[in-house]
Amino acid sequence: MLTLYYAARTCSLASHIALLDAGATYELQRIDFGRTEQRSLAYLEINPKARVPAMATPRGVLTETPAILVFIAQSFPKARLAPMDDPFAFAELQSFNSYLCSTLHVAHAHRMRGNRWADDAASFADMQRKVPQSVGACYELIENRMLRGPWVMGESYTIADPYLFTLAQWLEDDGVNPARIPRVMAHRSRMAERVNVKRAITEELAD
Amino acid sequence: MLTLYYAARTCSLASHIALLDAGATYELQRIDFGRTEQRSLAYLEINPKARVPAMATPRGVLTETPAILVFIAQSFPKARLAPMDDPFAFAELQSFNSYLCSTLHVAHAHRMRGNRWADDAASFADMQRKVPQSVGACYELIENRMLRGPWVMGESYTIADPYLFTLAQWLEDDGVNPARIPRVMAHRSRMAERVNVKRAITEELAD
Repeated sequence: MLTLYYAARTCSLASHIALLDAGATYELQRIDFGRTEQRSLAYLEINPKARVPAMATPRGVLTETPAILVFIAQSFPKARLAPMDDPFAFAELQSFNSYLCSTLHVAHAHRMRGNRWADDAASFADMQRKVPQSVGACYELIENRMLRGPWVMGESYTIADPYLFTLAQWLEDDGVNPARIPRVMAHRSRMAERVNVKRAITEELAD
Repeated sequence: MLTLYYAARTCSLASHIALLDAGATYELQRIDFGRTEQRSLAYLEINPKARVPAMATPRGVLTETPAILVFIAQSFPKARLAPMDDPFAFAELQSFNSYLCSTLHVAHAHRMRGNRWADDAASFADMQRKVPQSVGACYELIENRMLRGPWVMGESYTIADPYLFTLAQWLEDDGVNPARIPRVMAHRSRMAERVNVKRAITEELAD
């Protein structure tokens, strides 16, 4: 059994969608950010990083979205969610996911989580002012150079698709102009129509 | 043939060491950050992100350290640099590398690259003041919860080792107290003794 520790409206949605895409049997455990449950002693035992997602497996807990997504793909090979046997194609997929975690998500986090990297209210305001530009630049690179279409990696749906979809939920709030990234917006709409995406979002909001 | 685009004293060293560990045939192409060559039109054609590393392969260019490292490991399986056939062990390795790129390296970057996320000099100073704390917290987590020893993942040397070694070059300049992370420091010393590590550093400084 796999147990996904998640919070609604966070990047854990990507792993949740991938579990459904894989046909995995899983349980959900909601971590209540409103009560800062991610910093509770009980959760810190599971994930000392005090973040989501974390996924408990029979062999131990995994963290970090790119790692969890590949674990799901590799554990359920019939779902064909990653080209594990083609080192170059797999590396391109990994490169995309790595960009999302280390550049796009990080740029986004400067809107609400500035206290990770600074202390002064003026710095937080400065960071927030720059988010439309920094996040926008990430999306323009994705739009123009990285997203192949119809899916991120081209004709084959992969674990990169729920990950991009998940982060793209936040782009309007980040002040990014959707008109400048029509292919990203079309991908988001295409994803939103998928049964597993609708189900994952419904499960998270209902829990 | 593989061509690694690198700059000395950057995270591209990790991929360089891994190429040597893999026994790969490769060429080096130095990108001169002093002349902002990473923003030249020629280099932007190779890597529109204007960063290093980038690695040209017969099928195209790869970017992002975690992706390049796994590509090297998977392309040269005899070197046994990653447990590709064990989804859980591979996910643990990927989780470690993902933490380095998205949390540790990002925290470090707030010392010199604050203009990625803010505009005001006062914000940059605020960010710089927080680096010893934010980077230090990453290393304490690595020290106490992540680094198994003697190598990152335990008894087997993997691609996580050159990656941690590379980022650990910067910890004193980031204001981290080495006395608080003796196991990280012992790992760095152990790595520094390896022939391939010495050779990679020598090649980069000589080029």
